[in-house]
This record gives sequence, structure tokens and C-alpha cells, in this order.
Amino acid sequence: MDRIPVAVLGATGSVGQRFVQLLDQHPWFEVRALTGSPRSQGRTYREACRWVLETPMPDWARTKVIQPSDPELLGTRLVFSALPSRAAKEVEPMFAQTGVLVCSNASAYRDEPEVPILLPEINPEHTGLLAVQQQVRGWNGAIVTNANCTSTGTSIALKALHDAFGVQKVFLVSMQAISGAGYPGVPALDIVDNVIPYIGGEELKVEWESRKILGAFRDGAVEPAAFVISAHTNRVAVRDGHTVCLSLAFEKPWTLAAAYKALAGYQACPAARDLPSAPRPVIVVREEADRPQPYLDRMTGRGMTTVVGRLRPDPLFDLKLVVLSHNTIRGAAGGSIYNAEYLVSQGWLEGRPAV
Amino acid sequence: MDRIPVAVLGATGSVGQRFVQLLDQHPWFEVRALTGSPRSQGRTYREACRWVLETPMPDWARTKVIQPSDPELLGTRLVFSALPSRAAKEVEPMFAQTGVLVCSNASAYRDEPEVPILLPEINPEHTGLLAVQQQVRGWNGAIVTNANCTSTGTSIALKALHDAFGVQKVFLVSMQAISGAGYPGVPALDIVDNVIPYIGGEELKVEWESRKILGAFRDGAVEPAAFVISAHTNRVAVRDGHTVCLSLAFEKPWTLAAAYKALAGYQACPAARDLPSAPRPVIVVREEADRPQPYLDRMTGRGMTTVVGRLRPDPLFDLKLVVLSHNTIRGAAGGSIYNAEYLVSQGWLEGRPAV
Amino acid sequence: MDRIPVAVLGATGSVGQRFVQLLDQHPWFEVRALTGSPRSQGRTYREACRWVLETPMPDWARTKVIQPSDPELLGTRLVFSALPSRAAKEVEPMFAQTGVLVCSNASAYRDEPEVPILLPEINPEHTGLLAVQQQVRGWNGAIVTNANCTSTGTSIALKALHDAFGVQKVFLVSMQAISGAGYPGVPALDIVDNVIPYIGGEELKVEWESRKILGAFRDGAVEPAAFVISAHTNRVAVRDGHTVCLSLAFEKPWTLAAAYKALAGYQACPAARDLPSAPRPVIVVREEADRPQPYLDRMTGRGMTTVVGRLRPDPLFDLKLVVLSHNTIRGAAGGSIYNAEYLVSQGWLEGRPAV
Amino acid sequence: MDRIPVAVLGATGSVGQRFVQLLDQHPWFEVRALTGSPRSQGRTYREACRWVLETPMPDWARTKVIQPSDPELLGTRLVFSALPSRAAKEVEPMFAQTGVLVCSNASAYRDEPEVPILLPEINPEHTGLLAVQQQVRGWNGAIVTNANCTSTGTSIALKALHDAFGVQKVFLVSMQAISGAGYPGVPALDIVDNVIPYIGGEELKVEWESRKILGAFRDGAVEPAAFVISAHTNRVAVRDGHTVCLSLAFEKPWTLAAAYKALAGYQACPAARDLPSAPRPVIVVREEADRPQPYLDRMTGRGMTTVVGRLRPDPLFDLKLVVLSHNTIRGAAGGSIYNAEYLVSQGWLEGRPAV
Repeated sequence: MDRIPVAVLGATGSVGQRFVQLLDQHPWFEVRALTGSPRSQGRTYREACRWVLETPMPDWARTKVIQPSDPELLGTRLVFSALPSRAAKEVEPMFAQTGVLVCSNASAYRDEPEVPILLPEINPEHTGLLAVQQQVRGWNGAIVTNANCTSTGTSIALKALHDAFGVQKVFLVSMQAISGAGYPGVPALDIVDNVIPYIGGEELKVEWESRKILGAFRDGAVEPAAFVISAHTNRVAVRDGHTVCLSLAFEKPWTLAAAYKALAGYQACPAARDLPSAPRPVIVVREEADRPQPYLDRMTGRGMTTVVGRLRPDPLFDLKLVVLSHNTIRGAAGGSIYNAEYLVSQGWLEGRPAV
Repeated sequence: MDRIPVAVLGATGSVGQRFVQLLDQHPWFEVRALTGSPRSQGRTYREACRWVLETPMPDWARTKVIQPSDPELLGTRLVFSALPSRAAKEVEPMFAQTGVLVCSNASAYRDEPEVPILLPEINPEHTGLLAVQQQVRGWNGAIVTNANCTSTGTSIALKALHDAFGVQKVFLVSMQAISGAGYPGVPALDIVDNVIPYIGGEELKVEWESRKILGAFRDGAVEPAAFVISAHTNRVAVRDGHTVCLSLAFEKPWTLAAAYKALAGYQACPAARDLPSAPRPVIVVREEADRPQPYLDRMTGRGMTTVVGRLRPDPLFDLKLVVLSHNTIRGAAGGSIYNAEYLVSQGWLEGRPAV
Repeated sequence: MDRIPVAVLGATGSVGQRFVQLLDQHPWFEVRALTGSPRSQGRTYREACRWVLETPMPDWARTKVIQPSDPELLGTRLVFSALPSRAAKEVEPMFAQTGVLVCSNASAYRDEPEVPILLPEINPEHTGLLAVQQQVRGWNGAIVTNANCTSTGTSIALKALHDAFGVQKVFLVSMQAISGAGYPGVPALDIVDNVIPYIGGEELKVEWESRKILGAFRDGAVEPAAFVISAHTNRVAVRDGHTVCLSLAFEKPWTLAAAYKALAGYQACPAARDLPSAPRPVIVVREEADRPQPYLDRMTGRGMTTVVGRLRPDPLFDLKLVVLSHNTIRGAAGGSIYNAEYLVSQGWLEGRPAV
Repeated sequence: MDRIPVAVLGATGSVGQRFVQLLDQHPWFEVRALTGSPRSQGRTYREACRWVLETPMPDWARTKVIQPSDPELLGTRLVFSALPSRAAKEVEPMFAQTGVLVCSNASAYRDEPEVPILLPEINPEHTGLLAVQQQVRGWNGAIVTNANCTSTGTSIALKALHDAFGVQKVFLVSMQAISGAGYPGVPALDIVDNVIPYIGGEELKVEWESRKILGAFRDGAVEPAAFVISAHTNRVAVRDGHTVCLSLAFEKPWTLAAAYKALAGYQACPAARDLPSAPRPVIVVREEADRPQPYLDRMTGRGMTTVVGRLRPDPLFDLKLVVLSHNTIRGAAGGSIYNAEYLVSQGWLEGRPAV
């Protein structure tokens, strides 16, 4: 069967590179075009891109010539966007308007009511917003976003516990990887032998995104979940993998054993379970006292699995735990690809869901 | 005036080295003896010690021969203990019994009701426990401990806010430096490109120590403060300086401006204020969005000042902030030396307080 | 076809872990036993081993019970040794004597004249020493070593250039990864924001090993190559991958283009070329000004390829270049497995070569 | 006595910050003005500068308003230049022309025959070039440069050995700190768990600078020293302190003991010895097997002393050793300040030497 032609918008940055890496030999998608800023256009990907990943740049990508992010030129029905937020704001609607499905890692449209923040293993029903989006905006295509890299693992772990015990309050402190800031991103002088207890805008994003992600889709809208989040976000000297300390208060009775079971046993809905990039399993619970750790656990399930550990009672709330998620795989490019797979499997490339 | 002869017990480890560094050219104290394990005894300090500090080993220390931790042999009225907890448990009482004042960095006796965890800038009245200690245990000397390195900065910041608004609940996540684990301590393979979300026993210590430290001294005993703490402790790739994210709930009305003022304006009692190692000031409040940072701020006030920043409202509790403290200076050796200075200034070397 | 049963001696250390990782799903070999020190024996691998690799511990390994390194007990004809040098000295001959083929990563026997330091892509003829070894020592089995992790990549690059131009003088400075020191190995306090310009015994090893490896096998002995090496070895804050700066003087005329061609075109002999762990290709030459880099290039050819770059004229000698090799894959466990594959393919498990 | 008013050109960068730090409470100099790029002009230093040093920004600097680098405006007779090379090329002569003494850390004029690369402890006689410079260029002031940060420590160690044994050949491999690239400089993704075996233009600079620095001043010109250098330069994950591995061939007979003595006993000429920033001593020789190390040794002599160690015979040449120098103190800002002190002490502020 022919693979579906796709393009990667903003392919030269660190998330763009992950798209290129993860789409290499993808069973469904074939990268036809890579786009970049005017400075990069006309050069080959190899020339335009300072590759920062641990595996070599795929051969097919090396010789591709960087194009502008122009829907007419690219001609694909599906694009992945690794554009910076400002560029995404302007460019993504141009694609959506002309019938293209935009699976975006940018934050530009996440807070629009008709744009879903989709994580297929926990909120596939939010794709219901796409019909609303097309109607409201008059688009033939659509924009689907994935969550902020810190919200991603957190939301997945919260979902399993929310279903079981009803999450009421969330304290959250992140220790985030440098790859989350892109390239060149964090200067080495800022992070070698150091911690930066601040990431611009991140705490606000984390405090509302999880509520939208875990919200209920009803009557054509997503009603945010009712819990409250307090977030502190920090940058640490880790290349990949965001580690998050969580303290949770629940509405219902709970036990450590039940929390363990809710997390380790969590399953995606059947439609989201067997896709090429689906996390297998969705959540791994480590029992060692000192796990998860980013270096050891970030590649669990090829970087798509959320790894949880250190479940223990909390003196103030109910449960303390630690959540780890690969920020540029599950939390960025891999998440967008998983979204695309889910949408394609549901018939969205034909403009309407299969169901 | 003659300086007071002192000894450093367990001088070859990383905290022992800080004692040697900070006691170099101390105006009141002169190091007469350095002790170490049987493996080190008989060798010079230079031979026995793998120095890990950023300034050179003082000349007077290089040639000192390591002795056993034996009160008779050492003959000083004041000792600083950087012993490992197990050794401290056994050795420190031998000194206290023979009339020696032990200013200890070890955790062995911190939870004994008659042993104060002394931080002169916030709880000098806890020295009242020493008389009880001598009576209960029949000692002529005494043991005074300083707080765990993570509790230190936290307690100092909490004290200023507790006085002002009454702290009720504390949510706390630490990012701790590798020097806190001693030498050899943390293997490089565990921390380069990694975070360890676990430090054995640390969370329990942090959850009760601050309550004892901020407790009220009444009728010969310290009654722990009533607030509840929930702590997550983590190790990160920082050499020195523990960074702590805090969310606090208060009993009384508060404002950001008042919190700022309470912290920046906090003063030690006059008796604790002008000692050689007293922090000047006790607390610095940084106003930049991304401070405090361990590399930039740990040496504030020669490593004795607690640096606070990022004061902002908390969606669940009241106040979010970040606290930084140098873990082997204010949080360890420097703290013990400050304790000794306070006790000496109060006449405790003569066996009773000046007041 | 049935896989050949093998054992890993010293399986809990960092090189032992690489053996376990690389032998997972190996097409020829099946791990029957894992051995460890008395402290580990009787515990499962999962309990006994502090795993430090970036991929999860294979499931089959988790439940294996650690055994002593005893040939009778293990009963395999082929073992991989990741033993510390002292233990290897004693244990490996016990296996060789009872007919076992020992593919060893230990340095204990590397300097014995009848023990080859085998790198199948460059000196397969050194297996001729095995017959001598069996005769001289009265063994039915044999010991085959791989090179020190720093000599490995260096020797491979030198071989290609030696064949072409005759290497005469080698100036070499290494920047070595922390995994080369095992676990716990290098303390974090020694390497965060630091370089250690010293690795005990390493410079001597590097200065003679390459000469043995590139030596001529004649009349039952290896005559070391005639060039002279001057080595400086350093430890840097890199997890995996040794980077080596080389300046070379040649005997014969040379050009940059010819050096490039000699390296990029180097091929293993046919018998060593198509084995499961053979590097494909043996050498990659990077043309970017700033490559090879350990993070970006160490996994080239699944960690078996030697990556070379920065070919440029040397003001004192002839050629400057940089060589990178994965120290625990090509330079340790992967090298031993490649050796075993070569020996098995040559019929050595039946006690004699196929040819 | 009144302190001499000075200005720092390019004060917001990482070397500019070192100037500000080192000039804080300088006994001779008082900073009157700080300059910066148009983007910074008009803002206070505190606003315009992202401070990256381990001690707090001096209070006097925080409120200084950044000015343009204009000789008329600044009005000081002495300026320190931390300008980027391109800006220095244009701006420094404007100052020199109007009678200002420019002590520059920029590389822009280092290779001009009439501009000395001055290190007062080893080549004070090169100030003889200043008269030539003024004559040739028609300047009333002058430009004096300090060496590249890598050449600095190397040249100082070489000088001691050159005087004793006549250096003939130099192999040199550097492991350079990230602060050498300025701020933001090296992206964290390029250096955490990595080495970059390339620094643009650095090897050429190092290969000729030391020869000029150690050259003989004769007949109004400096004749470069006759030895040949081969340099490899690398960037490693160290904040401050360049570590250099050297192999040297000598013209004359030598011994390890004599080399030790030549280095440890090296003295600056009397006129350069007692200046405020003079290194005390010029060179420290460490005898431990694993020193010098950047973290432990870079602050020797307040960062002005060159630290040498690992003296041992070289199989190819004569002597192997390791040299460490603080790249932003002795190798940059501290070096310029030392130059200024030497020039002032020699009467150059009055336009002519004291002697």
C-alpha cells in the first residue's frame, strides 16, 4: 500500500528533527517535504540543520531541499508542525483552510475552544471538536495539537488516577530537560553546575492544559476538569526527559495498591491502542525506590510510555508520586505522529471520522 | 587574644573539608587536631584526604597527622563533628561526657528531645535544651546539632514567614547538590544527564526537622510547630547549593508585599547578629524572574545567606517561592561553626550561658 | 537452528550489563548463565545489578540467579568475561583449561605473548596464536581478548592508514567517557565542571597495545608494529564514547585525499565482514568541521563503527585527525561478541579453525 | 591617592563581566564607564547584563548606565576592551588615536607586528613595540593585547622551559571551558554528555601566538621564537579553566628534576612581580598524579597563577606535562588588568615609559 505523503513544517529545529527521526521508515507516512525559515530555504536539510539527536540523520532527509511553509507548494493533505509559536499562529490556519490536517506541536492554538489538545490514549473523544472547528472557522482541514511536554506525562498519569479516585488537587514540580527549550536554547553557562527555577510561561500552561485535556466533551465543547493545579517548573542539566514530582488529593477513597493498579492497568481505548506509535504499555510503574530516572527510563516504549514511580502517601494530600515522560518524543513529535495516526485511522484524512 | 583550640572529627570527608576551609584564619578558633577513620590515622591530612573544594587546602592542614576521635588524646574543649551518622552516634557522647562542647553536623542526635537543632538566627532560645541535656544525660559537655542541609534554608525562610503569617501547610520539592552525599558519594553515571528522584531518609528528616526547629521552647522542652510538611527530595547535577520549591498556606491574611518585607527585613536577634559567621543579611530576596540559581547565588553572604526568590501567588495554597542555601556552608560546616560562635559568645565554653 | 549457550562472567558491572544488553536476541548466542561476586550470588540479576544503560534490562535477565564463575557449574563452551582484572587473572584460565573459549574484555592476559588482542576487522590472522596458546599452556580452550577501549578505535583508524602510508609516529590525547571506569567508578564530584587529566595505567596500555594489535603474525608469534606512540589520557564528563586527537607521521608519501580514501574505503577481510556484530562500515569519515562528537556519533553502526573526522595537515608530523569509538560497545562488550562470532565462524568452538 | 579612572568596553559579555568583577575594589583603577552595543545603551548594567559569575554583581556596577564606546564621551585615559573582534577592529584605534591606552582582550590586533601580546611575567620587553606603534600609526595612545586564553598558560609554562632547555617542538591538545565562548556561547545541547573537537580559528591562533609571545624583541620588532607547534583544540563541559596536554622536544639536555625546578622556580622580572594582579607565584607545580584539574586548581593565585602537573618523559619527544590556566581571569580580563598595571607602573599613562 502506498504511504501517505506528509510534510514537516519547521523541520530544522530540535522538535523538527525528532519528527524527521521518528518518521524515518514510518509504516504509514512518507515525508515529501521539509520546510524552514527563509534563511534555510533553498539549502539541503543537511546544510540547513544542526542535527542534535543521538542517531544519524536519515539519508533521505540529508538531500531534501528546505521549502517555505506554503500549502500550495507542498501539496500534502497532512502536515506536522514544529513551528515556533508565532509562526504557527499565522501559518497553520493557512493549511487548515485549504483542507490540510495539521498535527501541531506548537502552543499557538491549544487554548482555542474548538482546537483539541489530543492524547489518543486518554481523550480520543476530543476529536469531536474538529467538526466544530471546521464549522466555526470555515476550514476544510483542521488543527490538532498535542500537549505541552510537561503536561503530557502528567495528564496521562492523572487520567488513570482521575478515573479511579477523582483528582481534586494537584501539586506539581517539574525538572525539565534542556531539549525542551529547542536549539540553541539553553546556554551551557546557564545549566552546567546549575538549575534554573523558571521557564517562561510554562507554569500557566501546565496549570490549565491538564484541565482541558482531562475535560469532558459534551455538546460540542470541552468542559475543563474541576481540579486545581499548582505548578513550579524548573530546568535541569538533563538532555531529554521531564521528571515531575506530584502530590495529589482525591475525592474518593483510595489505597496505594489501588493507585498502583489504576496506573499499571491503564489501557487506551481499542481504537487508539494498536496504532504504530501507540505507547505499549501506556504507563509503566517502577517499583524501585529511586525510579523513574530520565537517563534510564525515558526510552521506555520507544519514548512513548509514561513511566511512574515512588508511589507513597502524602502527609498533606493523599498520594505522592514521580512521573517521567520523554519530552521530545511522547511530549512533542511522537505525540503529534500518534495523533495523526489516530485521526487517519478514524477517517479524518477523508474529511470526516470513520465512526 | 589567644584563639580557642578546636578539633574537627571526620575531617577527611567533604563536610570535614568545608570545616577545614572555613576555619582557616577563623578569628576565634584554631584547629589543633583533625581526626579520621583507622585507615587514615597516622597519615598527614594531605595524604589521607582527597580534597574536593574550589580553594586550595590550607597549608597548616596539609601536614597535620590524622588522629583517632578520642577526647583524651585531642584535649580540646570544643569539637566540630563531620562524622558519618553511625560513628557520630557512638563517638559524640564520649566527648560530651568529658565536658566537651560538640557542634555536630551529623544527624545522629537531631531527633533526641534534649538535643537542639540550632540555627542562631532563628531559634537561639533552643540552647535552653542544653541544661536539660546535661541534667538528663549527666554530661558536663553537650551536643548541639545543625539542621539537615535541606531543612536549613527552608526553616530560615519559613521562620520569617511564620512570624508574619503563621505557616499552616508546606509543600516542598528539593533539587539537591551532589556534595550533600559526601565523597565519593554520587557516582557520575548516576547524575550526568540524569536526575535521581530519591535520597534515602531525606524526606522524613525534612518533614519533621523544620517543625522542631521552629518549635517553641517552653518548660525545658521544644514543642514542634504545628504546620504539616510534604516533601519530595531529588538529586541533580549541581556541585553545591540546594534549590527548594515551596508552596505555603498561611493562617493569617497576607500579601506578596508583606511576604517580601517579612523575608527581606528578617533579622537575627542581636546576640546572633554580629558573630564572625553570622549571615549578612540573613535572607536576600531576589527580584529577577529566574533567581535564585545555585551557581549564581550560593555564595551570597559567603555562603551563609539564604537566598529567596520567585515570590508569587499559589493557586492551591497562598504563596509560591524558591529558596536556595549553600548545603555544605550554611547547611553544614558553616552552620556548625556559627553555632559554636553563638554558644561561645553565650559563655557555654565555661559550662553555662552568659545570660 | 539452536543458539549456542553462553555465560557472562561478571555480569553485574557496567561492561557486564552491555554484554547482557547486546546479547539480547542475539541470532547465534543464548545466555544461559550470569555470574557475579559472592555478594551477588544467589540473588536475581534484577536484585544484584544496578542497571545503568539507556534501554531497559531484558526480561530474561531479570529473573536469572547470579552464579559463581565456575566452569563445572556453568557448563557452556563459550563465555564472555567482564571480570575485573584481578579476578580475570585467576578465573579465566580455569575456563580455558576445561575446554571453554573465553572471550574476555579484561586486561589481565592482553600482554601474554600467546594471547591475541583480536579485532576481527583488522587482525584476524592473530587467531593463529590460539594454537600456540593451547600448546604452550596445555589448554583445550583458549583466551581471546579485545583491546583496551581507547586502543580500539585508535588501532582501527591506524590500521587503515598504516596499510596505506606506514605509520611511524603517533601522538595521541584521549578524552574518555566515565563509563570506561565502570560503576560506581568516577565520583560525580570529580567530573561535574571538571576534567581529570589522569587514568591509572591507561597511557602505558595505549602505548603498547596498538603496536601488538597492528603487529605481524609470523612463525607462531606476533611481532609488534614498529611505530612509537606518545599518549595522554583524560577523563571528561561524557557518559559513553572515547574521543581521541591524533597526530601521525608516516613513512611514505601521503595526501589528505588518499588518507580520506584509505579510511572511508577500509574493509574487513571477507570472513570478518558479514558477522552479526561486524561494524557496517568499519570506519565512517565525517566531513563536518566539528565531528566526530561522542553524543552524536557513538551509536554509528550500532556502536561498532569507528568514526573519524577533522583530517587536516599537521605542522609537526603529517596528519591530524580525531577518532571516536563507543567504549563499552566496540571497545568492550560488542568487541568481545564480535570476537566470539569470528571464532565460531572459523570453527573454533569445535577446537580447531575451519580453514 | 586618587584612583585612575578607567572604562570597560563591551562590559555586558562574559569577559566584560570578569573585568567588572576583578576591577571591583581595585587599588589603582576606578571604573567610570561601562559600554555596550546599541541594544544595551541607555539601560543600567543590571538591566542590560545577564550576569554569569559566581560572585554577585558589584553594587556600583548595577546602576551604571551603558554608554556607547566613544572616546570623547568616556574621557578616560585607560580603557579595557572586551569587545568582540569585529567591533574591536574598528573601535580600538579610535581610542588609541585620541591618546587612550587600550588594554584589549580582543584578538583583532594581536597579529599586527607593532602590537605586543603582553604577558608581563614573561615578555615585558615587548612593550618596546609601543613606541614603534605610535610612530607607525601616528597614535598618541596605544593598543596592548593579552594572549588568547589557550596560549596564555601554555606560553607561561613554555617560557620557563624555553629559558632552561630551548623548546623545539610542541604538541598541544586543549580541553577548553565553555566560558571561553562567551555568553550565550555554547548551547547546552552541544556540550552536556559531549565533547566538541573543534573551536573555529583557535588552532591557528595557538600555533602562532606562542611563538610571537616568546619571540625576541630586537631593533624595534619581535622575531617569533623558532619552535613549531601542532595544536588540537576541544571544548568540554567545564565552566572555567582550560586544561592543556603538552609534549615537548628540547634543544638542550634536560632532566625531570631540572624541568620541575625551571617551572616551580620561575620568577617574573622585578618590575612585573609586585603589581596588584601579578600571579603569586607565576607557576605552581602539582605533584599529585591527577592534577591539575580545572575545578580544583583554576583559582590558584586568585586565578592568575598557571598550574602545571604530570611532568613525565615522553616516548616521542622529551617531556609530557599538563598545564591549567583560568581562561577568563589570567587568560582574559585578569591578564588585561595585569598589563594595565605594568604599563602604568612603567609610566605609560604619561605617554612614555618610566625607564
